Amino acid sequence: MTDHFEPYQFQDLTPLFNPKSIAVVGASGKEHSIGNHTFKNIVEYSKFEGTLYPVNPKQREVMGLKAYPDIASLPEAVDVVVIVVPAQFVREALEQAGVKGCGFAVILTSGFSEADAWGIAEEAKLVEISKRTGIRIYGPNCPGLVNLNVPLGMSFSPAYKGDITPGSIALATQGGGLGRNMMQHNYRGLGFSAWSSSGNECDLQVADFVYHFALDPECKAIAILVEGFKDGPRFAAAAAKAAEMGKPIIGLKVGRSEYGAKAAQSHTASITGSAEVNSTVFQQLGVIEVDDLDEAMDVAMLFTRKQPTGNEKVAVFASSGGAASLCADNVGTAGLTLSEFTPETTAKLAETLPSFANISNPIDTTSISISHPQALLASLVVCASDANTDLVLAPIPMDYGIYTENNAKNFKKAQDTTDTPIVPIWFSEKTGAGYFELARSGLVPFRSLRNMGKAVRRWIDYGQYLSTRDKGWQPLIVETGVAGEAAQTRSLTEAEGKAELAAADVPVTAPEVAATKAEAATIAAQMGRPLAMKIVSAQITHKSDVGGVMLNVAPDNAGAAFDTIMSNAAKAAPGATLDGILLEPMAPAGGVEAFVGVARDPVFGHVMTFGLGGIYVEMFQDVTRAMLPVSQTQAKAMIAKLKSAKLLTGYRGQPPRDLDALALLVAKVSDYVAANAGRIEELDINPVWVGAAGEGAQALDAVVVVRA
Amino acid sequence: MTDHFEPYQFQDLTPLFNPKSIAVVGASGKEHSIGNHTFKNIVEYSKFEGTLYPVNPKQREVMGLKAYPDIASLPEAVDVVVIVVPAQFVREALEQAGVKGCGFAVILTSGFSEADAWGIAEEAKLVEISKRTGIRIYGPNCPGLVNLNVPLGMSFSPAYKGDITPGSIALATQGGGLGRNMMQHNYRGLGFSAWSSSGNECDLQVADFVYHFALDPECKAIAILVEGFKDGPRFAAAAAKAAEMGKPIIGLKVGRSEYGAKAAQSHTASITGSAEVNSTVFQQLGVIEVDDLDEAMDVAMLFTRKQPTGNEKVAVFASSGGAASLCADNVGTAGLTLSEFTPETTAKLAETLPSFANISNPIDTTSISISHPQALLASLVVCASDANTDLVLAPIPMDYGIYTENNAKNFKKAQDTTDTPIVPIWFSEKTGAGYFELARSGLVPFRSLRNMGKAVRRWIDYGQYLSTRDKGWQPLIVETGVAGEAAQTRSLTEAEGKAELAAADVPVTAPEVAATKAEAATIAAQMGRPLAMKIVSAQITHKSDVGGVMLNVAPDNAGAAFDTIMSNAAKAAPGATLDGILLEPMAPAGGVEAFVGVARDPVFGHVMTFGLGGIYVEMFQDVTRAMLPVSQTQAKAMIAKLKSAKLLTGYRGQPPRDLDALALLVAKVSDYVAANAGRIEELDINPVWVGAAGEGAQALDAVVVVRA
Repeated sequence: MTDHFEPYQFQDLTPLFNPKSIAVVGASGKEHSIGNHTFKNIVEYSKFEGTLYPVNPKQREVMGLKAYPDIASLPEAVDVVVIVVPAQFVREALEQAGVKGCGFAVILTSGFSEADAWGIAEEAKLVEISKRTGIRIYGPNCPGLVNLNVPLGMSFSPAYKGDITPGSIALATQGGGLGRNMMQHNYRGLGFSAWSSSGNECDLQVADFVYHFALDPECKAIAILVEGFKDGPRFAAAAAKAAEMGKPIIGLKVGRSEYGAKAAQSHTASITGSAEVNSTVFQQLGVIEVDDLDEAMDVAMLFTRKQPTGNEKVAVFASSGGAASLCADNVGTAGLTLSEFTPETTAKLAETLPSFANISNPIDTTSISISHPQALLASLVVCASDANTDLVLAPIPMDYGIYTENNAKNFKKAQDTTDTPIVPIWFSEKTGAGYFELARSGLVPFRSLRNMGKAVRRWIDYGQYLSTRDKGWQPLIVETGVAGEAAQTRSLTEAEGKAELAAADVPVTAPEVAATKAEAATIAAQMGRPLAMKIVSAQITHKSDVGGVMLNVAPDNAGAAFDTIMSNAAKAAPGATLDGILLEPMAPAGGVEAFVGVARDPVFGHVMTFGLGGIYVEMFQDVTRAMLPVSQTQAKAMIAKLKSAKLLTGYRGQPPRDLDALALLVAKVSDYVAANAGRIEELDINPVWVGAAGEGAQALDAVVVVRA
Repeated sequence: MTDHFEPYQFQDLTPLFNPKSIAVVGASGKEHSIGNHTFKNIVEYSKFEGTLYPVNPKQREVMGLKAYPDIASLPEAVDVVVIVVPAQFVREALEQAGVKGCGFAVILTSGFSEADAWGIAEEAKLVEISKRTGIRIYGPNCPGLVNLNVPLGMSFSPAYKGDITPGSIALATQGGGLGRNMMQHNYRGLGFSAWSSSGNECDLQVADFVYHFALDPECKAIAILVEGFKDGPRFAAAAAKAAEMGKPIIGLKVGRSEYGAKAAQSHTASITGSAEVNSTVFQQLGVIEVDDLDEAMDVAMLFTRKQPTGNEKVAVFASSGGAASLCADNVGTAGLTLSEFTPETTAKLAETLPSFANISNPIDTTSISISHPQALLASLVVCASDANTDLVLAPIPMDYGIYTENNAKNFKKAQDTTDTPIVPIWFSEKTGAGYFELARSGLVPFRSLRNMGKAVRRWIDYGQYLSTRDKGWQPLIVETGVAGEAAQTRSLTEAEGKAELAAADVPVTAPEVAATKAEAATIAAQMGRPLAMKIVSAQITHKSDVGGVMLNVAPDNAGAAFDTIMSNAAKAAPGATLDGILLEPMAPAGGVEAFVGVARDPVFGHVMTFGLGGIYVEMFQDVTRAMLPVSQTQAKAMIAKLKSAKLLTGYRGQPPRDLDALALLVAKVSDYVAANAGRIEELDINPVWVGAAGEGAQALDAVVVVRA
């Protein structure tokens, strides 16, 4: 299998997650020590069947196993070296492990780049060892790594032993606290295949684990919690692999607000990036963005039940009229579609349920759930086998003790008759035996109707994403610079910028620059149409503000306008060097104005923003974004996402605009940036004039900012 | 105390919630019967100290109490008669109770208006008895009423005995299932003062219970769950009383989507009304609208801790860097403000916490929560006593067993030192002893960061509502018609409508109607300005569609235009009676166009919609709504809520518009509708021309629909 993204190589992490041999540096027999917790987690609470070596120069044996004084003296190069010694001893252990040819080091120890200057320097030395010897590093400053389907816990955490519920959700986090929170969803019945919590990520990072999980047959869904991506394009490459394998990634990214971004930066010393860009990237890569941790788990749960097609219709099956109504309400607000039962289903429901029940969708069986549990079972089987229904949502508003437990058993029996998932929503705070009966049967409930709506919506959307994604697309990959170091930049003049764009086949006005009044008159006469005239000066960015712009100038008046603009600019910007006046024909009247911007995100590289000008962006923030590159087809999809797109397709009797030409312009801008990716920091084409169909589109102004 | 809304009288419900005497019609000693459940709930699971009478003609005594054959033979007129006999026997029992002078009947029995035609007719007879004898009805078709601070449960529900946690949240629901769901939040530590679940609401309704809870000193917050309001203005009156008493109402209204509205209508046979109108009404009345049941409980919980001022700033206190970041992130996305600690607080935190802790807001104590619990306590006390902090949010991402339990005890100790609420967010699915320690101490945790953000935002917003609400305002109260019966209506002609508006001081163009070409020419000459000319015909609503409108007609061309329009209309609408042509001066160029609409909502009466014309409403749904009446001041507030409001206040060098005149126009429209409330069904003024400041505003077109 070849990598989808050529520039990125992902190492096979199987020996890290399923090692044949492990050494624990700092393993100890001393109760309550961190080395003891770590060793015990492997010896007592794992089912590790490979070879295990305690490494401790002060102990002869640890928990009955012969201890080695150091890595160098081990009889073999182990797959994984787990390191729990204090920070000042980590480097030596890693050096020995690298030289010996060990595959991976899991460094649990804290006190590196997250702590102080010494730690930053020391962590750089660990990276040097990794690069030199080939040993890969997991951590440092992390709670470890667990593979729950063995189970194997390479972790010091005393909580590990309580959180072992094997399953098919893989979890990749950076910090340990929030990862533990997600793991504790095993208390509601969710099972996990593995959890990586990669701390400072001086080498291996979330992207590497995502790639591994994408290929892991035990994993059906990948949940990630990220405070800052170390390498955006690498993550994009891993996400593309996950999509190729049909594995959804469910992502929560800290830093959706300024407070969060600031706190995450201070916590992890990573660049959090812009929330808008992050959401754009997630959407483009098919990463399912969620708003909270429990939502991540709810979405993941649904993927463990079935893969979506993108066209699912749902039935609601309730034994309370209120629950049926409120569940249907949430189905509606989430934009889901209630299935219309077939005549056969309706007839069978009428036979099975009493006359006062509601047998259309949403179904309300009424209190037969208590009085006639067999009728409940029979009607649920009918509902779940309806040919028009792809998912059955079963809201359970309250715990009724033994009745609910009995119904839970019947839910399982009904599920055994069909492939259509029956998904309960247990939204009472009282979770009794019935709840755990469902969880044990694999019918893990949602815990709120709101989360149900959000999760089902996202599940279906992912089905649509998979079926429509552009398999050939891969993001523009360029060196994104060093974190925290802003590049030196300069703006091209309008004439320079437009010349570059024109050379790259971006339709753009062809301006000429007049150095004198006479030249201006000559150029104007040649153009022979009303003109836009603008001051040319490297020191003047906001040309209008200094009286440096005149529009709709008749060719005959161009000479006079030259003098006026020069005089305005000289007065308003006395120190500026005035290089002349730019002249270009005015765009025909009656066009729609759009804009195209590109900025280089420190994490994900060049991201394009597109929208219609003026009020649409300023008042309604009606813009759409995409990572580059953007093809003409993708540009059309971007344009269609705007709320104001109707203005382009023929609003209130206006002619439809030249969408082909506009989309081509956008694609050509993308090509231009791609061809100059290492140099271009920012680009702003505003306005883009968009004519009626057949009239074309044209960049009327352009600011290009490049690295100095 | 006088009623705030004069037309509405609310009966004192104290004898219903705290009766001195109760009779149970259908009380039974027979195990598992509904009459037995009901009687047991009073005898065994309540602490009712008044007189209790079982009524059952077939049993001599019930659970040791002398049974009476019927209500008539009781020795006294009891405060409450609880009725659990089958539907066909209910009427007789109610009749006897009414005649005897009993205060209230709690009718648990089903099979009335929710069931069939007999039930609808029978329920109407119950209402007749109530009106004739004065006995008030609670129900029928409901699980009963519970007063938890006694406790007293007048309910057949076997779940009642498990859900008795007294407290200060009052709950009013219609259906029983979802109400029980909310009651089961007692399993997470919430306490309730009372729960009304009023079923078919043939007499007493949610509004009556809200009014009662507003006056109940045991209640600090009122949660309501409504499928359909029986009487909108009555609810508005009750909500105004709650606001007057400083009691927040937290409301979830089913029917936010078409699916939900349809299901709720079928479930309760009530009019659910429009979701947009309902949200408008909630906002205007200060009712805190929530999206799900658990959110209702989260908001209510916060009100049991403290009343908000509307200006609260929050601190985040965490022992996990990830939890601190994610909590701060949610603080930001909810639009809350992190407090800036005073220099004293910062100095004390630096003394109390280790150097690697984060002592700015959000605080990350790091793992001292495990290693140095006393330092955690000390730093929490410092944080909570900070002079700039009004609320401390303490996210707890995971259960760490005994450590977490110990910290929970310290939370309580810290809370004892300050009035600033310390609110934990326990967002792990594993709830151990620590969780219940917090709940028992009165520090009931939020269960998700998302809900925390939403709840705190709503809590603070309510503080702002209370401090800025217009105490004198009361809604326009008119007969809103009979459910399901659409009134016969007709449209006034434009000239008629404008004449009515002009008479009501609404600035409106003064059109004249010409019956002939010559008349048109004469009128045009008198007007002496460019004209708008429009066909006048009762059969033609969409005048433009038949070529019935010409704009900017020069006065000299008015005669020719008359012929053109008449001819267009005659061709396009051959059957229509053409009454002539309306002429009016064109509005000056350069104005901004707005619109004002009023529609009669079947539940809440006349609701106004305001917005700017064209794309703003069509593409961005940028409108604002309000129940009538709307004063000039309120109109300004409505206008300010629009995203497109900037277009009125001076966008991109345009002059500011005449907001005073526009707001006055809106208020005059409101006055006009109020004065004709029984007659006006709908009104649409589109466009309203809005000139620059000082130039005024004017209705250019008007459609008025009245009852025929």
